[in-house]
Amino acid sequence: MENKSSITIGPICGSNKIYVGANRVAMREIALNPSANEPPVRVYDTSGPYTDPQINIDINKGLAPLRKDWILNRNDVETYNGREIQPQDNGKARNVTPFPNPVANPLRAKAGKNVSQMHYARNGIITPEMQYIAERENVGIEQIKKQNRDGMDFGASIPDYITPEFVRDEVAKGRAIIPANINHPETEPMIIGRNFLVKINANIGNSAIFSDAATEVDKMVWAIRWGADTIMDLSTGDNIHDTREWIIRNSPVPIGTVPIYQALEKVGGIAEELNWEIFRDTLIEQAEQGVDYFTIHAGVRLAYVPLAAERVTGIVSRGGSIMAKWCLSHHKESFLYENFEEICHIMKTYDIAFSLGDGLRPGSIADANDEAQFAELYTLGELTKIAWQHDVQVMIEGPGHVPMHKIKQNMDKQLEACGEAPFYTLGPLVTDIAPGYDHITSGIGAAMIGWYGTAMLCYVTPKEHLGLPDRDDVKVGVVTYKIAAHAADLAKGHPAARLRDDALSRARFEFRWRDQFNLSLDPDTAQKYHDQTLPAEGAKTAHFCSMCGPKFCSMKISQEVRDFASKQNSNQYVASQLNPEIGMQQMSEKFKEIGELYIPK
Amino acid sequence: MENKSSITIGPICGSNKIYVGANRVAMREIALNPSANEPPVRVYDTSGPYTDPQINIDINKGLAPLRKDWILNRNDVETYNGREIQPQDNGKARNVTPFPNPVANPLRAKAGKNVSQMHYARNGIITPEMQYIAERENVGIEQIKKQNRDGMDFGASIPDYITPEFVRDEVAKGRAIIPANINHPETEPMIIGRNFLVKINANIGNSAIFSDAATEVDKMVWAIRWGADTIMDLSTGDNIHDTREWIIRNSPVPIGTVPIYQALEKVGGIAEELNWEIFRDTLIEQAEQGVDYFTIHAGVRLAYVPLAAERVTGIVSRGGSIMAKWCLSHHKESFLYENFEEICHIMKTYDIAFSLGDGLRPGSIADANDEAQFAELYTLGELTKIAWQHDVQVMIEGPGHVPMHKIKQNMDKQLEACGEAPFYTLGPLVTDIAPGYDHITSGIGAAMIGWYGTAMLCYVTPKEHLGLPDRDDVKVGVVTYKIAAHAADLAKGHPAARLRDDALSRARFEFRWRDQFNLSLDPDTAQKYHDQTLPAEGAKTAHFCSMCGPKFCSMKISQEVRDFASKQNSNQYVASQLNPEIGMQQMSEKFKEIGELYIPK
Repeated sequence: MENKSSITIGPICGSNKIYVGANRVAMREIALNPSANEPPVRVYDTSGPYTDPQINIDINKGLAPLRKDWILNRNDVETYNGREIQPQDNGKARNVTPFPNPVANPLRAKAGKNVSQMHYARNGIITPEMQYIAERENVGIEQIKKQNRDGMDFGASIPDYITPEFVRDEVAKGRAIIPANINHPETEPMIIGRNFLVKINANIGNSAIFSDAATEVDKMVWAIRWGADTIMDLSTGDNIHDTREWIIRNSPVPIGTVPIYQALEKVGGIAEELNWEIFRDTLIEQAEQGVDYFTIHAGVRLAYVPLAAERVTGIVSRGGSIMAKWCLSHHKESFLYENFEEICHIMKTYDIAFSLGDGLRPGSIADANDEAQFAELYTLGELTKIAWQHDVQVMIEGPGHVPMHKIKQNMDKQLEACGEAPFYTLGPLVTDIAPGYDHITSGIGAAMIGWYGTAMLCYVTPKEHLGLPDRDDVKVGVVTYKIAAHAADLAKGHPAARLRDDALSRARFEFRWRDQFNLSLDPDTAQKYHDQTLPAEGAKTAHFCSMCGPKFCSMKISQEVRDFASKQNSNQYVASQLNPEIGMQQMSEKFKEIGELYIPK
Repeated sequence: MENKSSITIGPICGSNKIYVGANRVAMREIALNPSANEPPVRVYDTSGPYTDPQINIDINKGLAPLRKDWILNRNDVETYNGREIQPQDNGKARNVTPFPNPVANPLRAKAGKNVSQMHYARNGIITPEMQYIAERENVGIEQIKKQNRDGMDFGASIPDYITPEFVRDEVAKGRAIIPANINHPETEPMIIGRNFLVKINANIGNSAIFSDAATEVDKMVWAIRWGADTIMDLSTGDNIHDTREWIIRNSPVPIGTVPIYQALEKVGGIAEELNWEIFRDTLIEQAEQGVDYFTIHAGVRLAYVPLAAERVTGIVSRGGSIMAKWCLSHHKESFLYENFEEICHIMKTYDIAFSLGDGLRPGSIADANDEAQFAELYTLGELTKIAWQHDVQVMIEGPGHVPMHKIKQNMDKQLEACGEAPFYTLGPLVTDIAPGYDHITSGIGAAMIGWYGTAMLCYVTPKEHLGLPDRDDVKVGVVTYKIAAHAADLAKGHPAARLRDDALSRARFEFRWRDQFNLSLDPDTAQKYHDQTLPAEGAKTAHFCSMCGPKFCSMKISQEVRDFASKQNSNQYVASQLNPEIGMQQMSEKFKEIGELYIPK
């Protein structure tokens, strides 16, 4: 269903929106065919109000501020006259309609206060955000609780059940973050940490060449529909401020940005002309709008730049290369590094989390795990400790292009260098030779590093290295990363991860085609592919599929095997196996009695 | 380019066919832009004569018999009056035009002779096939030989250079196989083993519901164009014999089949009515046509069937479920297991390799690594030893649905149980929840198990579990598995694996767009995606791309960083880094002198 703004709304095929518990945590529930005799399957839901048909969506108004009272009730914030929008905030041309309903006066921490979730956590306070998250992370755990857990977690500490106290404790330790700017009350709280469900991020954003605000809002809604846990707005070029306002006011998930991109626009794209004042002003501008986490490349120090000079692909991070150019040009230490404590003050005034940028990540297999990359990582570890002294939340960005045998070293070094702060990685791409398929080259690496302990995976679309992703690319990227994240949850032994796999596999075995589609990550595509071969409605209930046809179906035959086995006296059956001479004839005759269960071809 | 038979022929974009060495080994060579100042990149080529514009393709005649003289010169084969084609070979209807140019009299080993490559190998004979393979496997090694190897091989023994003697020795040890039926002389020899490049298989085949012979030949040619190393013809339903003849006569890669599928057609699809005589007759029929390897599910023993009864998805292998039904119905031990030695006699008479089928592979995450699966694996190990007593080549089929943390156990147990016979796995799929994207769920597992030591990866298409793959699905499946296989080669430390990655990455860094496309696994898609955002021809030489636009490009900036660094006296530069106070101002001024290298926006 598309509304007049071309935003896709309405339930995902076969799903209902539900609200669970005292905090009314939004979840998605997939009802099964009555023949399954199984309860509906609840799944984690990032899609926000857009999939609730009871809620009237108007992107000109923005979403309801779910967290507003929680924030105000803490009595540690004040409104103030925010920074005025300046022409340079939108570049040379402001040709996007401004969001009609902006927040008049932003919030900030009262003087001397720190409004970060980490600060509350360290003071023993369980916030409503933490309560919401505990309920949200427990999705499915009640249903599956009797199953034995099975996994290999590489030292993670995933509990059987997530309590609000566990959430608080993980945030206090810095092992998890809750990106939750006090000026973005529209978010449904979520957490990023190794001991929680693995999350994924989708990047959107216009560029100097293409795109506009409406398209970007649509991409955001589309990306969260398919499972993006956070969105990064990487817009460059004109209209950056307005585009971001549209996105944030309509986003139920945390929004991240790379503020240096906008700062660079403000100096006409000349990296050398950047300075701390312009950067600082950009942080305030974005803080007041409600950005939940900032990528800041404070680890690209002057001394590391020459380490990248002989690389096959140099510096591939945009932020990293901007800072490298600035450092070389002035031959000075990075102003981000030098002003890091002041940045921390801004972060705790609004509760913005650091995403410490990996400006020196490898852009090719040849450059993986080199000195430049790890020198920066250790600096990010130092900066993490400084941020934590301010009770500011931190995650660490990583990978890029890394062959499989070098992935684990990245995770191990990150855990060691950064004190278990959550890792947030791009891919990694495990080979360079497949432009057009880099969602797959990177999905492989993402699944692996997610298993090893990465808390959030930054998606890559099929257009990576080639062009700007469109709607279809965004969806393919998100679904690929949901696969990677879920595969990681399974391998880590998350207590409820198998719930959905098992439900879908039972549906598959029992030829409940609609249940199989609805339980999948992308019901629309699953059904479309099925219909391409067997479009008739009758085929949705057929006890065979197009691959084998009605006579050869292995599922059908093995159901017969099961039926046969279940109709035997099981002791007798086992005895016949232990001594195959006994009872063979008898078994044979019983099977013939039961006979064919399906119509012959 | 499409010829009159709708078979896609002609070179892959940017590539030329070349023939290397005394054996004229077919390879593909990708020429680079002169500005690269690099030699062309040679890559392994599975596409056969179809990509050589010098060769006239006529699928009604079939391919030239490359190996014919090699086979005849060994003086151990004889022609004979083959089995006559019977109506039941093609099912109830024979409505496909028979291949017009069939082999009149097939070859077989002379009485008392064994024509398997393993037999020659064990007798110290290096065959022309082994010489061809050595040259083929060394592709790129000359070009990259100065690079330090880097990888983690889990106990594999990959040499720096492949000699014909190494090929012989690996085949003699049973660690590698050369599928090469003497009645399929059209093959370009290839090898499957842990110490060689990882290979991929693509499945094609009509079914009772859809498809015909021409479509299947086209799919075969299409699949090898994109890199399939072997093709399995999994046809069921009618016209099986004729479809197979068309495929084999036109295939430069080994063809595998699952003979039980055709045998079952011959008994009207009633598994209980199968018997050894019908199965044996089918083996002879297919042996005479030239099938290079047979999947035989001889490890599905009667006693193992009940182990699968309580599984979530039972038995998902078609061959496995057919045999399970036969065993239960008769309550007898499998006739494949009981007649295994006689099967070996057939195999060595034509040099057909065993692909010992994993009839009890898991069909869901819930069933992975269970007792049924491993009981069968150990039986396959016993059968391997019997086959080796006959000098018959063997590979072992494996995985299915396996979460990441359980993959390595499969490889470890297979190596132990089967004496290092090559492992050939389907995926594995690392989650069940993404029908429509199972090329990706399985590509993740395939890359990992390939790294751990699997020699050949059986592809999965996006239609898996849903429908029959069309041409587009076949291509996506093949490219996904080329990614997995290549990622595995990189991670294992194959000596030349990085050649292509590095060449592509240099092209990327230097904005040689056409080189980047041509070096990719799928140049057509890479260029199409690029053109969707920046279609102009000028954009193919632009020193920026659509993601960042001309001002923000990190590659551009880091080239400036490199140029700057290279123009410094490097000692002076290093000194300035060690003592940053020295020379900062000086460096800053030098950089400003060099200035912008590209046109401002």
